[in-house]
Amino acid sequence: MVYFDNAATTYPKPPQVIRALSNSQVKFGANPGRSGYDMAINTSAEIYSARLAVARFFNLSDEQGVIFTHNCTTALNTVIKGLAEKGSHFVISNLEHNAVLRPLETLKLRGICDYSIAEYNYDDDKTIANFKEKINSKTVAIICTGASNVFGVRFPIKKLAELAHSYGLLFVLDAAQTAGVVDIDVERDGIDYMCVAAHKGLYAPMSVGILIINNSRHLNTLIEGGTGTYSAHSTQPEDLPERFEAGTLSVPLISALKQGVNFVSIRGTDSIYRHEMSLINELYRQMSGINNVELYVNPLTEDIKTVPVLSFNIRGVTSEQTAQKLAENDIAVRAGFHCAYSAHKAFGTERFGTVRISPCIFNKMKDVNILLNYIFKFAK
Amino acid sequence: MVYFDNAATTYPKPPQVIRALSNSQVKFGANPGRSGYDMAINTSAEIYSARLAVARFFNLSDEQGVIFTHNCTTALNTVIKGLAEKGSHFVISNLEHNAVLRPLETLKLRGICDYSIAEYNYDDDKTIANFKEKINSKTVAIICTGASNVFGVRFPIKKLAELAHSYGLLFVLDAAQTAGVVDIDVERDGIDYMCVAAHKGLYAPMSVGILIINNSRHLNTLIEGGTGTYSAHSTQPEDLPERFEAGTLSVPLISALKQGVNFVSIRGTDSIYRHEMSLINELYRQMSGINNVELYVNPLTEDIKTVPVLSFNIRGVTSEQTAQKLAENDIAVRAGFHCAYSAHKAFGTERFGTVRISPCIFNKMKDVNILLNYIFKFAK
Repeated sequence: MVYFDNAATTYPKPPQVIRALSNSQVKFGANPGRSGYDMAINTSAEIYSARLAVARFFNLSDEQGVIFTHNCTTALNTVIKGLAEKGSHFVISNLEHNAVLRPLETLKLRGICDYSIAEYNYDDDKTIANFKEKINSKTVAIICTGASNVFGVRFPIKKLAELAHSYGLLFVLDAAQTAGVVDIDVERDGIDYMCVAAHKGLYAPMSVGILIINNSRHLNTLIEGGTGTYSAHSTQPEDLPERFEAGTLSVPLISALKQGVNFVSIRGTDSIYRHEMSLINELYRQMSGINNVELYVNPLTEDIKTVPVLSFNIRGVTSEQTAQKLAENDIAVRAGFHCAYSAHKAFGTERFGTVRISPCIFNKMKDVNILLNYIFKFAK
Repeated sequence: MVYFDNAATTYPKPPQVIRALSNSQVKFGANPGRSGYDMAINTSAEIYSARLAVARFFNLSDEQGVIFTHNCTTALNTVIKGLAEKGSHFVISNLEHNAVLRPLETLKLRGICDYSIAEYNYDDDKTIANFKEKINSKTVAIICTGASNVFGVRFPIKKLAELAHSYGLLFVLDAAQTAGVVDIDVERDGIDYMCVAAHKGLYAPMSVGILIINNSRHLNTLIEGGTGTYSAHSTQPEDLPERFEAGTLSVPLISALKQGVNFVSIRGTDSIYRHEMSLINELYRQMSGINNVELYVNPLTEDIKTVPVLSFNIRGVTSEQTAQKLAENDIAVRAGFHCAYSAHKAFGTERFGTVRISPCIFNKMKDVNILLNYIFKFAK
């Protein structure tokens, strides 16, 4: 199989990630933070060292702000609903995933809060101006994806954070598509909350998410339950990370995630990015020469920053049909709306969606050539 | 190590569970329900077959009502907050875990709903009468644990469900301590919603929870996001299980859970229960002969039904001190409040908590003798 669906989940996983998964069942088989025997203590220490690895990776000064969640969607729901109070207003981009849009729309329908959508522009200054225009006196935060999961275009994160802070607002980054692929430094970039899908760019197994809290604002809880601390209190403790980690943690996945973070750290985000973009660039170069192929964003344009994701269509057939024909030839890509319909409206693909190609560090130019071969064939 | 902390998480896991974890990284490495290539389809099929295994195990007629969650706490929060509307009232027992108490207390403090606490009684009829007394015109559901996670006493689930239904209420079972250990049949027992900690009695890895929906009532969502379905809709779909499974699923844990369910099915819940209770009974018989040992519930009493969990204390020392001394001798038990302080108030152990012994199918009488040996020594 030639696997180009890494924006959904990276495959394969590094061997040390897979080993950590099964090792965890032998070495870290106790519930962490609940007991005082050796295996429970060792399990707690493993979780702590994973927290530390994540904090270092994103340059978060206090590792207690690393919250392990079910997935990135849960992390996003935790921040959004933790901040949302009666009358609150949020500003988001028009390229957000349903993991941002659906919680906000649900809160809106429940009469709790409202949100406005700012348009992405190839020109960063225009994007910033679009966001600025949507801020009102009720706005509490700007929530934005680091990059479109469909078209790959990146947002000027640091400038958006500066805009948010200049209005006394918080900045929330959905890093599902950027963590591990582009360099993120929560201090330098001014990120107050960041949500990560660790099974993508951090090469962890499905599903473990991370919520980075780099802010002292009080956040309401989404989920309450046992924390192994302050058991006599019938409310959730204030301390991080326990406040947002009710119930049993995903020990095997977190232990594996630690190995994923180490793997990416050693390879280096910049080097991973360059490798994956070289594949995307070659795909674009070749595909732009095919008459029947529709492309939407040119990653070769110097002033457009993208992540290694390329959406395309073959004229006259739906994205599902193209993906199906590739699947029959053992090539894995994803078709449709990619849970981000609003992004398709922005790029005019709301009718049939797109076929998305997304490489990871393990893809080679050979894979690109195999894929190109079939695209040439089908697009004739 | 002699491991007696199985009520927190079972250890070891059956070999097929551990194998499934690592196999999943090779065979089921794609995001299920999002794409049409072979590995994505195989992953979807694996998740579906896990759903089917769980449905069969608990005799749920429609496997779409099997929702995979982060953990039992998330499942409980999903039901409680899904049912809670302005003015709603719930009745719970006084032996509930913080996973039930804390969400309800949070909703109460937020002015959304209220709850009453009914007392457990050794006499089932009195327990039922206590619950009945707490029902009022605003009550929407009875939420009750199958058994105390601290003292092991069991609730008359079927009768509680009948009581609930006779008032037009829903019955929610917290099966964290009973699933896989006592026979549960959601149809026969009249369970509308059931929450399961699969890493306990179903021998899955930490952490994967199950929410069983055996009821057609509309439930609000707790978490919204991508489902791979109806992507163009900015609200969560109504269809089960997607409605309550936003974001990427824990494929490796669910695949391993399937093996855990098969393991328990083959061994048989009754046989597992008998084995574990024989160890508990022996512990009780021997420990009740030690002067300095305090015991709270007698599992040998014919008309008290318990699960295989035994709480004790050694007079004059805290539960933590006893557990610590056992830990120094490589015996794993858990001390303290076990995230269920209210249960300690009921049994008069709210000052120092208890030491909890909880076996699993892998414990042998030899382990019991080792443990007893140390208890004899420390209690002298």
